[in-house]
Order: sequence, then C-alpha cells, then structure tokens
Amino acid sequence: MSQGKKGLDGVSIGDSRLSLVNGTEGKLIYAGYKIEDLAAYALYEEVVYLLWEGKLPNATELETLRASIAENAGIPEEVMALLHTFPKDADAMAMLRTATSALALYDADSENYSLDSLRRKSVRLTGQVTTLSAAWMRIRKGLAPVAPRKDLTLAANFMYMVNGAEPESTAVDAINAYMVLLTEHGMNASTFAARVTVSTGSDMHSAIVSAMGTLKGPAHGGANTEAMLQFMEIGEVANVEPWFTQNIKNGDRRIMGIGHRVYKALDPRAAVLRERSEALAKASGNTKWFEIADNLANLALADSYFIERRLYPNVDYFSAIALYTLDIDVDMFTPLFAMSRMAGWTAHIVEQVTSNRLIRPSVDYVGPMDLEWKPIQDRE
Amino acid sequence: MSQGKKGLDGVSIGDSRLSLVNGTEGKLIYAGYKIEDLAAYALYEEVVYLLWEGKLPNATELETLRASIAENAGIPEEVMALLHTFPKDADAMAMLRTATSALALYDADSENYSLDSLRRKSVRLTGQVTTLSAAWMRIRKGLAPVAPRKDLTLAANFMYMVNGAEPESTAVDAINAYMVLLTEHGMNASTFAARVTVSTGSDMHSAIVSAMGTLKGPAHGGANTEAMLQFMEIGEVANVEPWFTQNIKNGDRRIMGIGHRVYKALDPRAAVLRERSEALAKASGNTKWFEIADNLANLALADSYFIERRLYPNVDYFSAIALYTLDIDVDMFTPLFAMSRMAGWTAHIVEQVTSNRLIRPSVDYVGPMDLEWKPIQDRE
Repeated sequence: MSQGKKGLDGVSIGDSRLSLVNGTEGKLIYAGYKIEDLAAYALYEEVVYLLWEGKLPNATELETLRASIAENAGIPEEVMALLHTFPKDADAMAMLRTATSALALYDADSENYSLDSLRRKSVRLTGQVTTLSAAWMRIRKGLAPVAPRKDLTLAANFMYMVNGAEPESTAVDAINAYMVLLTEHGMNASTFAARVTVSTGSDMHSAIVSAMGTLKGPAHGGANTEAMLQFMEIGEVANVEPWFTQNIKNGDRRIMGIGHRVYKALDPRAAVLRERSEALAKASGNTKWFEIADNLANLALADSYFIERRLYPNVDYFSAIALYTLDIDVDMFTPLFAMSRMAGWTAHIVEQVTSNRLIRPSVDYVGPMDLEWKPIQDRE
Repeated sequence: MSQGKKGLDGVSIGDSRLSLVNGTEGKLIYAGYKIEDLAAYALYEEVVYLLWEGKLPNATELETLRASIAENAGIPEEVMALLHTFPKDADAMAMLRTATSALALYDADSENYSLDSLRRKSVRLTGQVTTLSAAWMRIRKGLAPVAPRKDLTLAANFMYMVNGAEPESTAVDAINAYMVLLTEHGMNASTFAARVTVSTGSDMHSAIVSAMGTLKGPAHGGANTEAMLQFMEIGEVANVEPWFTQNIKNGDRRIMGIGHRVYKALDPRAAVLRERSEALAKASGNTKWFEIADNLANLALADSYFIERRLYPNVDYFSAIALYTLDIDVDMFTPLFAMSRMAGWTAHIVEQVTSNRLIRPSVDYVGPMDLEWKPIQDRE
C-alpha cells in the first residue's frame, strides 16, 4: 500500500476557484491575488468578499458586507447560557465545536439548503464564531461577555469584545492581517472535512463543526498553541541552542510549527508573520519570545536534517509569537485560526454544494476471509 | 476534471481489517464473517468485539464487554441538563451532534490520546450515544429520561430506555439485528470524515462528531428517514403505481433508499432487512407500509431506468419499515443509524491513529491568476 494514497497526497478532489497553494515555490494566491498584497492592504471583510463573490468589493459592497457581518454576529441567549455552564477549563476548541453545533438548534435557517440560506449562514457564522471566541475568553475568567458592536470591523470587534474597551489600532491591524493570512488554504484537512460532510447533503453547521474538530489537531490548527507552548518551555533566549541540541538533534522530538505537507519552500504566510511578529514584539518592548522563535528557526534552517527534508517554519510558527504579544490566551490561538478560516470554509461549502458529488473513497480490505460462524460455546 | 476524482470513487485511502464491501457481487464481510451470519446469530456486542479485537469473543469476553458498555452508558448530569434546554423540535441529528460534542467537556479522557484511552472512550461513547438517543425521544415528549440498566444488552437497553418498561424480545431482536447490519461499512463518508478529523491528531469526540454531521445528510444516514417520509407520502398501497408513474417515470424525483455508490447488485443488508421488516409487519398486524415499500421496490426493479443503472434498494430502504413498525419516531431513524455505527466509527478511528498519516488531498485551482491589487477607490 502506498503512503501517498493513505494521506491522499496530491490526489485532487476537483476544481476550485478559491486559492492556489504552490508548495514548491512557496506561493499562495486567493482568487487571483497574492497573499503578500492582501496581508499588506486588505481588510478581512475584503478578503471574505473576494472569496464569496470572486472579486474585490467596491466601497459600498464592502461596507454592506462589513455591516451585515457585524449586525449578525450576536449569539442567541440560549447558546450564551450554554457557555456559562461549560467547565472553565474546557478545551477551547471543544468549547467552540460544541457551541457552534448548538447554534444550529437556534438558527431558523439551519435545515434550509438553498444557496441564499447558505450565504446568510456564512455571514452569520463568520461573525458568531468571533463572538463565541471572545465571549469564552471573558466568561472563563468570570467576566461578563461583551456584545459585538455594529460599527466595527470583525478584527476590531474581536479585540473590543475581548477587552471590553475601545480597541487599539496596532492590535486591530495585527489581528486583521493574521485573519487575512489564515482565511483560506486550498484543500487542507479541515476544509476537506467540511466538504466531505456537506457532500452527503448535510447542512452548513454540521460541516463547520467537522472542520473545527479537524482543525483542532496538533498537525493542523492546533500547531500554533503547541508552538507557543514549546517557546515557553524553552523560556529564555540562552536556552534555545541547548534545547535544540538535546530535544531535536539528539532527541526524537519535532519542532512544532516547522514543516508542512504542501510547502517545500518557505510558507509565504510565515514570511509575513515573521515581520509582523518582530514589529509587534519591538513595539511591545518585549522581544524575548520573538528572539526565541527566530533563533530556533535559524538553527533549524541551518541544519542538514531540516534542509534535506525542506522543513521551513509554517504559518503557525510566527503567528504564535504575534498572538502571544497581543495578549491572546495561548489555548485560544486555535479558535482564532478557526474564526479566520470561517470565510474559506464557508466558501468551500458553497462551492461543494453548487457542484456536488458524494465524497466516498474506498479502502483495501486486508483482514481475514471466509471465516465460519461458530456458536459462542464452541469458541476458545 | 474527472467526476471520479471529485467523489474519490475507487480511490483507496489504504488498508483496513474491518470490513469488505464487494459492491459488484453484493457481499459484505465484517472481519472475515458474512453479514448474513452475523445478522442471524450475533449479538450487537459480539460484532463490536469482533471489530475492536479482530476476533469473535468467548462467553466471558462477551459478557465483560456487554457489562462494560452498559456500566458506562450513563450521561453526565450536565449533558442531560443540556438536552432539557434544547428546543423540542430540534433536528434529531443536530441534537445528537451537539450533545456528543458536549460529552467531551465532561470526559476526563477527552484530551488523552493513548490507545488505552481511545478504547475506554470507544466503550463509553458506544453506550452513551444509545442513551442520548433514547433520552431525547422521551424528553421532547415531556417524559423523564430513563437511565440505562447494567444487566441489559445495548439493544435491550435502548428499547428499555425508550419505553421505560421491560423490553419485548421481538423488538429487542429486531433492533439488535438492525444494529448488527448497520455497524460497519468500509470507507463510507461518515467513517471517512472521522478518519480525516483524527488524522490531524484531533480527539475521538471530534471525530465522532464529524461522523455524525456527515451521516446526517440525505445521501447517507439521512436516507432512512427520507425513505419513510416518502412511503408516508404515498400513504396507501393503491397509490404506489400512480405515485411511481407521476414522480419517477414522468417526474424528476428519485426514490429515497434506492441506489448506492458502491453496490451495483442487491445490498445484502437490504435482503436481510426486507425479510425482517416483512416478519415484523406481519407480527404487528399492519403490513401496509411493508407492502408500499415492497411494491415500489418491485416497480423499480422491473423498470429499465433502474435496471440499466443497477439501482437496488439499499440498507436504508427496508430499515425504514422495520424501525417504523417498531414504533421508532421517523426522525430518530438516523440517530439509530449513528448508534449502530459507533462500533465501526470507533474501530476506524483506532485503526487510523495506530497507523496515521494526515489526510490532505489537493484541488485544481481554476480561478484567475496574477491580478493586481487595486485600492478600493479605484474599483468599479
């Protein structure tokens, strides 16, 4: 059996107009636009519009979408009540998966499969997942959640709902750029899970819940939290080299946030995030975590094991530093990934539904054949 | 782009020792044993043991597993409290998906990835999904849920928890046979979704939740409910032929429960379920629904459209009649599919984890290239 089949490496599931991931050259394009331009100039909502509509919005179109997301970002009181009942130490992604699943129970559109309904739910869920994430950060600390404002962008609303105060523009810009960089990425495992789910004719909430459960793993969205925990374990810049020698060179551990299934060149998102996280660290007056991450990356980039296998920092590596510097709780990094990816997931769900075929691969049976049934008293 | 790639038709994701689905000959084997033998002789727990351990249990092993499932089938009070808060008209699969997701928040093992922990969770979830399904059937009717008994098999426990009374052996036997027939079926979409989810290193609850959301669709587990609704729409045996002529011959509707991605011969489970549902109908004194289903199937089996495309009744077609005759609420048919498939899903999750590779296919980008970023004021 080939390993390639097992991971479906390079097996295409069809056509998409959403993004091009060129792993060999380290290029990423959303619907025609280079990720570097989008990260530098685009509002998250502009990218959402681009993915959902296939073109960049004009000023009126952008404001209509921004307002629509903000106006629909509220959480039904029943679901907010659920969050209050959850154990305060619940895994953040298990919380988000459960709360998002519960949203379906209070969404009049949840069992409506029309394209219009899918678009309405895309708008609603994109805002609601941000609201749930921010609310959870407060509720588990014993603080009252803050409702979304109608006049803010999603990145600004998130920081406002986290802190309950007018958000600072540096933080909002950084969150916006992070969200733009994480919005969409071809047929990654969580997006694929969403497509498999909806390919049976199931609903959008089910598909998003599948995507969240899939993103949760440390080989996917869970990697940003794992990367930060690893930097915290190293703890000091002076420890980077001995830690690398002991755990990586002479140990059997992997560096969390280095290496990617598709990129065999530097992940273009990592390059942007490295710059962003360095600027954020300098502005904050604490560059320790950036230096730990950067020094560790440099050790890896100079090491023959990593060079031969073309292992480079991925999107999760420096995003951990950026989010940590913005005071985001470490275990909330993966929910932030989820809230950024909402636009990509929903766009893929619509693409799947509008040209659907049940996704059902096969498997090679290698177990026993032709066994004869024996009554239980005759078994050993 | 080939349609084959799009649905991953015939694309193997690797090896499995769990089941062989031979669609050409209409054969199904679980770990060496013919489905016909298992449906005739096996207790559901025997099949669970077979899938989890790769061999049939002796009497002691079977009793240990049966007792373990029964003892761990209870629902934490926090999750039972959730069920009481859900809207009474919630979609049954949305309820089950949300409640199962919530179970993770109260499961001390939920973030434990050891093989031992996976096995413990397999036992627990197999019982709990049955308990949740039975509890929901009562709660939404304003009845108090009934806790599982430690002395019963899972099929008997289900009927006991649904009715709050000592279950009848005919009903228990029928539910047991139904559950055995539905336990496992190769790389179907819900099982595949579970494997995709856990392939990122995510947890078992996430994977089961993905599987449930995927099963929910009418092209998968949702088909049994849809099939029954169609029989109810026909309503009378005399209406079968005109309904077929109007909606199928001269209309553009499909017969729910007829046709299958893999089977191009009679689904062997459908053959068993046809017999079972006929016997149940006769015993109940009401053969109308069986006759409607059987007459409709015979019209299809004699029709050139169906013959040419090799469309036969699938597992959902006659199981709808069996479950309806057992007085199971029509919208609960899909949760019953889920509770039966728990053993298959959990076995596949363990198989994936013990020989894991991230499942990440690719996609062909067909969107625009090399677009130049334009400031918003310059856009039309």
